[in-house]
Amino acid sequence: MSAQKPSVPKGTRDYSPGVMARRNYIFRTITDTFESFGYQPIETPAMENLSTLLGKYGEEGDRLLFRILNSGNFPGDADREDWLNADPARLALQICDRGLRYDLTVPFARYVVQHRNDISFPFKRYQIQPVWRADRPQKGRYREFYQCDADVIGSDSLLNERELIEITIGIFAALGIKCSIKINNRKLLSGIASQIGLKERLGDLTTSIDKLDKIGREKVMEELREKGIPGEEIQRLFPILSVEGGNQDKLEQLASILNADTEGTQGITEMNRLLKLCEGLGSPGQIQFDIKLARGLNYYTGTIIEVLSDDLEIGSICGGGRYDDLTGVFGMPGVSGVGVSFGADRIYDVMSRLDLFPGETLSSTRLLFVNFGEEREGYILNMLSRLRKEGIASELYPDAAKLRKQLSYANNKNIPFVALIGEEEMKKGMITLKNMLSGKQEEVSLEEMISEIRL
Amino acid sequence: MSAQKPSVPKGTRDYSPGVMARRNYIFRTITDTFESFGYQPIETPAMENLSTLLGKYGEEGDRLLFRILNSGNFPGDADREDWLNADPARLALQICDRGLRYDLTVPFARYVVQHRNDISFPFKRYQIQPVWRADRPQKGRYREFYQCDADVIGSDSLLNERELIEITIGIFAALGIKCSIKINNRKLLSGIASQIGLKERLGDLTTSIDKLDKIGREKVMEELREKGIPGEEIQRLFPILSVEGGNQDKLEQLASILNADTEGTQGITEMNRLLKLCEGLGSPGQIQFDIKLARGLNYYTGTIIEVLSDDLEIGSICGGGRYDDLTGVFGMPGVSGVGVSFGADRIYDVMSRLDLFPGETLSSTRLLFVNFGEEREGYILNMLSRLRKEGIASELYPDAAKLRKQLSYANNKNIPFVALIGEEEMKKGMITLKNMLSGKQEEVSLEEMISEIRL
Repeated sequence: MSAQKPSVPKGTRDYSPGVMARRNYIFRTITDTFESFGYQPIETPAMENLSTLLGKYGEEGDRLLFRILNSGNFPGDADREDWLNADPARLALQICDRGLRYDLTVPFARYVVQHRNDISFPFKRYQIQPVWRADRPQKGRYREFYQCDADVIGSDSLLNERELIEITIGIFAALGIKCSIKINNRKLLSGIASQIGLKERLGDLTTSIDKLDKIGREKVMEELREKGIPGEEIQRLFPILSVEGGNQDKLEQLASILNADTEGTQGITEMNRLLKLCEGLGSPGQIQFDIKLARGLNYYTGTIIEVLSDDLEIGSICGGGRYDDLTGVFGMPGVSGVGVSFGADRIYDVMSRLDLFPGETLSSTRLLFVNFGEEREGYILNMLSRLRKEGIASELYPDAAKLRKQLSYANNKNIPFVALIGEEEMKKGMITLKNMLSGKQEEVSLEEMISEIRL
Repeated sequence: MSAQKPSVPKGTRDYSPGVMARRNYIFRTITDTFESFGYQPIETPAMENLSTLLGKYGEEGDRLLFRILNSGNFPGDADREDWLNADPARLALQICDRGLRYDLTVPFARYVVQHRNDISFPFKRYQIQPVWRADRPQKGRYREFYQCDADVIGSDSLLNERELIEITIGIFAALGIKCSIKINNRKLLSGIASQIGLKERLGDLTTSIDKLDKIGREKVMEELREKGIPGEEIQRLFPILSVEGGNQDKLEQLASILNADTEGTQGITEMNRLLKLCEGLGSPGQIQFDIKLARGLNYYTGTIIEVLSDDLEIGSICGGGRYDDLTGVFGMPGVSGVGVSFGADRIYDVMSRLDLFPGETLSSTRLLFVNFGEEREGYILNMLSRLRKEGIASELYPDAAKLRKQLSYANNKNIPFVALIGEEEMKKGMITLKNMLSGKQEEVSLEEMISEIRL
């Protein structure tokens, strides 16, 4: 076989040790916080039945699912006509029964229904796994990326919302990312839609409102007109979205606008209680009630949350909300849940660009023994075993290569100490220890070396 | 949409919190050991280009690859005739460019070649990720399962083999699994094949020899006859495979049989040196030179390793070996590597069935505050924040549900302590702390509680 030029599929990446160390730092921070609030981990398979995934993410989502070709004689009874007419959508359904997961929320809903008899509700779970989307790859958007989700299912208490906000604040504080937590409630948006006589267009309204920050008021008005929403209603919409002031001020203005609508009033009550519960959380002004926050996903029904970096315009680095009936489609109606999802890749980008990673994320070897040949190997192997028992990651260069090459290996791997044992040292039972940062060399005993190089 | 009965695809599983805790215990033990020997983590994408995967695992491997349907108009220019003739193999190649990874070794070889300019050799990497195989699911065999690999690439020193054996012994000792490490060398098998005049049938020989322990001598002889190997040669093979005695004895007998063959002699030298290097490792007799060990994978060229549980017949729980030219197919010839792969799922099964997991793998909440209603929430939320600062995972039940329900939640989640704060306690600034194991209740201050429940 001729040599292939090796590459990864478009939109996917390898993670090398340096990047892995930084990613693991993010994952560890998130995991530790989740666990300190009593969330427990689960994992679900990379592939799900397409019946689980299809229809949950809208038309675009269906299109962006990666589908797995059935094994064996996959064409089976697939319709020859469909093939000849080259209808990809119909064909794909006949030759693929499974797809790669598109997010962690729908598999979680499936999990909850499937394991309902083993779960003690309210169920607080977290899940950190990759998801796959056949999106057009572009800067900062990948076809394989990690989501870190925490959800509480089976309780409609707003204490859960407060807890997820506290978790979010805690994680970003630990990572050193300054951020704003924007919150809103879908019931308020629904109330506004009713108020201006567009209750049945709520979906269209939220999709457009969601773009306000990105494309601006004029473009959104244009989009709404294109969707066939009358100019008069649009004129009534924007003053409501433009309420100004502190969280409480805005809420009071909205309360007087929405007081005739049941759902809107319910939204006001919930937001009032949530703001009260969140008093004292985060820095002053960090939690911002924003009536223009809409979020795209259709399954949200109550509180919605979005987190933006204060120092870098990169889109949301965390988002979530309450969904009242996600498990209904799998045969378990009336179970309310609320969750947040952290985007590990964007968080990584923010931390890289703002230089927020601590210096020592790369957990690497502390000490390299130079290899001077077979006759000293046994002696060194015994020392290595002792060092590792002391919790000191250490290694012996496997070949008796040139000293220069061995030192350059230590350098490239950021190994801070190198031990040299020549004939002289071996006779005396001593070690020449070289500090790779300072270049300093000294002769020490094994015990002295251990206390010197220990972290 | 009507409610669906939710399920996962055949051969895949959900991991619930209890199982996750035990799996993470295994992964942590493996990771800590790998890192203490200077191995660094990498990760590669779940999907690889099919050109990377095809032809690397033999015909069966190609058949067992999960293929991903191309996005969009996937039929494109695919041959209509192939479709009408329903030739799955030809069709699949036209409508799928990518597949899910089948193991971690081939993606690693691809990684090494792709990143050769950024890697400092010898490169010691570990990788813990799922792999996918469209195998027929059966007890203990899954379509999605985790491999934990450590490899050294770019050094042909036998110190690497010794190190991987030491790592293997260390990991299984830490997990409490008693095991035997079987080692052999493909060069010895090659020498034997030459010796009996079957050099060109080495592949067939190793595949059959590999089955000796499973199906026995008679069946293997039958299989060899069916493969067209003459009875005379078969008669000469088995006495060689039946050498008896200690490691050194067996090796000496083989040395006298193979002394005319260059590769065989090379194998003897390598095995001699490896056994010498391994002196003192593990318990007496734990490392066993076994000339019948063959291992299926074609890419091994030197030492081969396989680990078996002493207490449970479940097949190999770890295996590996040296491969001299895995990167050659990707355009980087002459780079030798050696690695081992731990099968997390079989290890899990062994530990479960032998009851080897420590009692406290489930890192769960230490303390649950009972929720008696809104008026005490603020008070409790402040305490929670203090407890978490002390590193104590704790939570407040989110609803003011019946006490019985809240206690049963604590029970199901294995939460060891429950705090009750009634009106009385709040006035006094005290807490009623209930030990869920002993059932004992006592009134304590916050500070007393912290020192009581801390792990």
